[in-house]
Amino acid sequence: MNTNTAHTATLRVDADRLWNSLSELGEVGAFEDADTGLRGVRRLALTDDDVAGRQLVVGWMHEAGLAVRLDEAGNVYARRAGADDSLAPVMVGSHIDSVATAGRFDGCLGVLGGLEIVRTLNDHGITTQRPIEVAIFSEEEGARFGTDMLGSATAAGRIELADARARTDRDGVTFGAELDRYDLVGTQRVPMPVAPYAYLECHIEQGPILEANQSEIGVVQGVQAITWLELEIVGRAAHAGATPNALRHDAELAAALVRVRLDEMVTSGDYGAMLATVGRHETHPNLINIVPSHVLLTVDLRNHDDSEMTRAETDLTNFFHEVEQQVGVTITHRTTAKTPPVRFPDSMQDLVAKCAANLGFRHEVITSGAGHDAGEIAALCPAGMVFVPGLYDGISHNPREYSTPEACANGINVLLSAVIELAGE
Amino acid sequence: MNTNTAHTATLRVDADRLWNSLSELGEVGAFEDADTGLRGVRRLALTDDDVAGRQLVVGWMHEAGLAVRLDEAGNVYARRAGADDSLAPVMVGSHIDSVATAGRFDGCLGVLGGLEIVRTLNDHGITTQRPIEVAIFSEEEGARFGTDMLGSATAAGRIELADARARTDRDGVTFGAELDRYDLVGTQRVPMPVAPYAYLECHIEQGPILEANQSEIGVVQGVQAITWLELEIVGRAAHAGATPNALRHDAELAAALVRVRLDEMVTSGDYGAMLATVGRHETHPNLINIVPSHVLLTVDLRNHDDSEMTRAETDLTNFFHEVEQQVGVTITHRTTAKTPPVRFPDSMQDLVAKCAANLGFRHEVITSGAGHDAGEIAALCPAGMVFVPGLYDGISHNPREYSTPEACANGINVLLSAVIELAGE
Repeated sequence: MNTNTAHTATLRVDADRLWNSLSELGEVGAFEDADTGLRGVRRLALTDDDVAGRQLVVGWMHEAGLAVRLDEAGNVYARRAGADDSLAPVMVGSHIDSVATAGRFDGCLGVLGGLEIVRTLNDHGITTQRPIEVAIFSEEEGARFGTDMLGSATAAGRIELADARARTDRDGVTFGAELDRYDLVGTQRVPMPVAPYAYLECHIEQGPILEANQSEIGVVQGVQAITWLELEIVGRAAHAGATPNALRHDAELAAALVRVRLDEMVTSGDYGAMLATVGRHETHPNLINIVPSHVLLTVDLRNHDDSEMTRAETDLTNFFHEVEQQVGVTITHRTTAKTPPVRFPDSMQDLVAKCAANLGFRHEVITSGAGHDAGEIAALCPAGMVFVPGLYDGISHNPREYSTPEACANGINVLLSAVIELAGE
Repeated sequence: MNTNTAHTATLRVDADRLWNSLSELGEVGAFEDADTGLRGVRRLALTDDDVAGRQLVVGWMHEAGLAVRLDEAGNVYARRAGADDSLAPVMVGSHIDSVATAGRFDGCLGVLGGLEIVRTLNDHGITTQRPIEVAIFSEEEGARFGTDMLGSATAAGRIELADARARTDRDGVTFGAELDRYDLVGTQRVPMPVAPYAYLECHIEQGPILEANQSEIGVVQGVQAITWLELEIVGRAAHAGATPNALRHDAELAAALVRVRLDEMVTSGDYGAMLATVGRHETHPNLINIVPSHVLLTVDLRNHDDSEMTRAETDLTNFFHEVEQQVGVTITHRTTAKTPPVRFPDSMQDLVAKCAANLGFRHEVITSGAGHDAGEIAALCPAGMVFVPGLYDGISHNPREYSTPEACANGINVLLSAVIELAGE
C-alpha cells in the first residue's frame, strides 16, 4: 500500500484502470452480435457466465485487500475496514448479471466503480472512519427468474428468502436450486443484520436525457414505480381456412388488442408519464395455418406516480374483460413484480449535487426510468444515485450500449467524493 | 367375385369395412398424444411411416383386383377396368400423408372411400362402362417439403417435375431424393398423359359449419384462394423503463397494429368473405423489460374471390408503410404461397347434390377453407367434392379429429352414387 496520503479534495480515480476492468469483465459471457457486428454480453443470473464474472470480480476484491462474504441470497459484500470498524459501513454497489443482449456498463459500472474507489483509497493510503463495503447483488435484471432486484429486495427484506428461492426460470429451475448448485449461499442472513450507514450507486442513465442536455452527471431523485404482469391468453386452435371468423377464439388477436390498448393509454397522456412495454410474446402452436390457441404475453408498466400506476392497472384489467367478451378467450394475469416509486432523501441528492459541483461537472436532477438496487436498499438507509450519460440516446440492454471512459470516470469521481464525505476521513 | 348384381340405386358401401380400414391405417405412424391421451397419427410424406401406409393400402388395392401403377411424382393410381376400357377413367382420390399431429380421417377417408367403392362394386359384380381409378397423391399436406398439394399439382402440370423434385425439407433433403430412395418413381409421366373423365374426392370438412347446421353432406362449390405472407418487422431494442415513448421503435407494437388491422379488414366485410390468421409470431429478444427489436409474423389470407384477395393484399401492403412511418420500424414481407380460388363446375356440384338428395341426406353448399387435391385435378377435368362433418367444431390436424362411422359411410355412399352415374353401368 502506498503510504503517501493526498488531500482528498484533489483525489481522482484511475480512469484507465476503471475502463480496463469494465472491458475485461465485458469479455465474460461476450458474444458477437449478428445485427451490429459489436460484442455484446450475456450473463444471465446464476449461469456459468455470471458465476465466471463473479469469480473475476471477487478475485479483484481479494487483490484489493477486501474481506468478501456472501449472504443467503448470493449477494456479495466486500469490506474495507474503517478506522472505527464498529460503525455501520458506507455501502457502494450494483450488479453484474445481465439481460441476454446486454452491453458492458449496466450494473458493472457501479460494482467496478466501487472497487476502483477502494483501489484509489489504497493507492493513497487513506483510511476512512467508517468501513466501506462494495456489494454485488444477485439477479438485478430479473431476466432469468422473472423478478428484478431479486437479490437486493431480499437483502432489504421486501421479498422473503423462501419466496425468492422458489422463483423459477423458463425451464422451472429455481433461484434457490441454482444458488445451491453454484455454492453461492453465504452465512450472512437476509434481511441484512446491520443496515448500512448510507448506500450509493453509480449507473449509466439508460436513457437519452443527459446526453440531450449535455449534462455530465445526473443527480437521481428517485426511481419510477414498476409493475410486471404475465398474461396467459387461452383461446382455441382451429383451421385457418375452414373456421368462420365468428366461430374463432383467437388468442393472437386478443394479444394484439391488449398491445394496441397499452399504446393508446401511453399516448393519451391520461396516466401521467406512463410507459408500457410488451417484451415477451409466445404463440402456440405457432403454425402459419392454425388459429393460435395460447399466447403468453408480458406487460412492463412504469410510472413516476403510484396512484396513476394503480389507475392504469385497474383500467387494463377491465380491458382484459372486454377482450375476453369480444374475442371469446380467457385472460388470466399475475403480477410478477411490483415496486412502488422511490424518492431518495434530499440529503443524499444534495450530497451528490455538491460533489458534482465541486468537481466542476454540469449536472441535473433526473428520475430513473429503470429499477435499481438503490431503490431496494433505500428501505434500509439513506440511499442515492449518480447517473452518467450513454451515447446513442442512452441505448441499453443492447450491445450498442456505450458510455465514454471519461463519462464513467466522472461518475466514479463523484461517487468517490460522496463516499469519503459519508465515511469520514 | 359375387355374381349377384343389385340395382345400383339401393347399393350401399360396407360401413364397418370402411371404418376398419380407417382404423387399421390409423395405426401406421400412430403416437400417444400427451395433451389428450388420444392416439394421433404422424405420417409425414415420404418417411418410413408414410411408405408403410402406402404398402398397406396398395396391398388392399391388389386384393381388390386393381392394377396399380406409379407416376414420376410418386402418385399412385389403382385401376378397375371398365366395360369399355378405352374410355377415360372416373378418378376418385385423396392422400394418406399427414401433418405431424394428425387424426385418422384427413385424406385417408377419400382414398379408403375410393377403395370401399371398388370393393362394393366387386361384391355386387357390377362392371361400370368407364374404368375407375383410385388415386393416392404424394405430399398433400406440405408439412414436410413446404408446398401443399405437391403431388397432385405435379400430376396436373401446375408444378414442373424438376421443380417438385428439388423442394427440400428442413434438413435439406429433396422430395426427389426421397422418391428415389423409397423406389417410388413410376413410369407414368407427369402431367397425366390422359386426363380423367371426371374427378371426385370425399373429405372431412375440417370446419364447424356442417355440424352447426346439422348437415350430413357438404356439396363443395370450390376452394378458397390462399395467400401466405411472412413478415419481418425490424425496430430497435431499448430499455423498457428508461426509453421515452417518442424514441421507441417497437417491433411488437407494429406487429399488433398489423394483427388488429387484419381483424378490422375481416369484420368490415369490405373484402368479401375474407379470412385472416396470424398463426406464427416470434418476438426477439423476447424479454420482459426490453422493447422488442424484431418480430417474425405470418399472415394467412383466404378469400372466395380472387379480386378481393388482390385488393386485400394491396391494402395490407399500404398499411405496412403506414405502420413503418408511425412506429419507426421497417417491415419486409414475402409471399410464401399463393393459390387462386377454384370453382367446381355446376354439373359436378349438381351431381353431388342430387346423389345426396336421393339418399335422403340433409346437405348444403359449402366452400372449402382448406386446399385439396381436387383443386389441382380440377385443371384437368370436371372435379367435385363431398364433405362430411367432423365433431368438436370440425377440429383437424389434431388427434381429436373425429368423424363418426355413419358420417364417413354417408359421404362414401354419395361418392358411390356419383361414381356410378359418371362411369355408367
